[in-house]
Amino acid sequence: MPRYRLLVEYDGKPFQGWQRQANGPSVQQSIEEAILQFTGEDIRLGVAGRTDSGVHALGQVAHADLTKDWDPNRIMEAANYFLKPIPVKILDVTLMTGDFDARFSAKGRHYRYNIINRRPPLTLEAGQAWHVKHPLDHEAMHDAAQRLLGTHDFTTFRHVHCQAKSPVKTLDKLDVVRKDNQVQIYASSRSFLHNQVRSLAGSLVMVGDGRWTSADLVSALNAKDRKRCGPVAPPHGLYLLKVDY
Amino acid sequence: MPRYRLLVEYDGKPFQGWQRQANGPSVQQSIEEAILQFTGEDIRLGVAGRTDSGVHALGQVAHADLTKDWDPNRIMEAANYFLKPIPVKILDVTLMTGDFDARFSAKGRHYRYNIINRRPPLTLEAGQAWHVKHPLDHEAMHDAAQRLLGTHDFTTFRHVHCQAKSPVKTLDKLDVVRKDNQVQIYASSRSFLHNQVRSLAGSLVMVGDGRWTSADLVSALNAKDRKRCGPVAPPHGLYLLKVDY
Repeated sequence: MPRYRLLVEYDGKPFQGWQRQANGPSVQQSIEEAILQFTGEDIRLGVAGRTDSGVHALGQVAHADLTKDWDPNRIMEAANYFLKPIPVKILDVTLMTGDFDARFSAKGRHYRYNIINRRPPLTLEAGQAWHVKHPLDHEAMHDAAQRLLGTHDFTTFRHVHCQAKSPVKTLDKLDVVRKDNQVQIYASSRSFLHNQVRSLAGSLVMVGDGRWTSADLVSALNAKDRKRCGPVAPPHGLYLLKVDY
Repeated sequence: MPRYRLLVEYDGKPFQGWQRQANGPSVQQSIEEAILQFTGEDIRLGVAGRTDSGVHALGQVAHADLTKDWDPNRIMEAANYFLKPIPVKILDVTLMTGDFDARFSAKGRHYRYNIINRRPPLTLEAGQAWHVKHPLDHEAMHDAAQRLLGTHDFTTFRHVHCQAKSPVKTLDKLDVVRKDNQVQIYASSRSFLHNQVRSLAGSLVMVGDGRWTSADLVSALNAKDRKRCGPVAPPHGLYLLKVDY
């Protein structure tokens, strides 16, 4: 049974998230239904990052098992044809060996969190960035972020319903950069806890607008207490950029 | 009567363009109605660039005459409040002397045309860039573009209904740059003819995909014949970036 790796881009806005849900459209279901249209096969995809409702992806990775051998390029073209009105597109398809698993073979995950930092509300970037009105000190955010790098118990920055067995993760990168009124947070790790990037982004904004010092951020981490987390940043600023294998 | 300069950003998608129209919503009408809400004054705005239906702006400039003296910042906040659900926002308001005219005082206009050059259709950038599937040679486009710089009769690249008295304009910049699969065209001039940037963008794509040589582009210019223009690029890739005074 050939296994294919799919590189996927989507606008998270109309979806309940990646995963199939009883109560609304999901990215997973959209792709599975498109594949059903031209293969006749009702498959279930594996995935690298089960993004939440509203979260976007520029480089999500999934895998699909099909009984027939398909030209990878034909899979891409046919899936995109049947996905036409839906803001989900397949950017690349590669034939893999059967031991490839989009989730368990992943060696690194890279996210970006987009903030637009200005007084006026957003127009073109509405739904694609978090609008933060108070001026943010991105250098203070970046300096504080460096104190979270390495291996820690990230209980503070983890959704209460997170299903990961351990709250201990290794954060490889947490950079904060500014381009004019855009403040971008880049986060990299082998894997993240549920809501971890949005929890970190919300807490870094507490540092950026002066409500927290970097010591407050470290103290929140060390407390290993979800109640010490800053407000969780909204989903529409978050992008899954890339998965390493 | 105090005159105010407004810096305006908008997503052109839901509008019939800048100018008031009988047959649909316009950017101009949206702002004038917002100003009416808090000033009680039914004014008409002057503007630097009367953008077409679907064209976006990051730095449009308009002017407004109000009978009362307003704090410029209050005008911005109040206008944005009443514009709330509409993707038009005022980024800055400045009190000017009465001889300032958003259109006639302008010394330079800067546009960007966004192309996404890839096979799969667009998701997050749908409605914000022109999707071109065939690979574009951006260096060939840039080299050809340099041959259009300077003062020329741009009749070939002008809408048949263009109301400018003369088709002679001076093109100061026409740069084509690539960032991954984004191809961006930057165009600067004191003023442009109606549809000039979109006509140039469509013709440069003819060069980029190999249907035209740069000599064909120059020949089209020299023909001073609208029928020799390439296909006009769609409006949703075009952004008015900045106006100089």
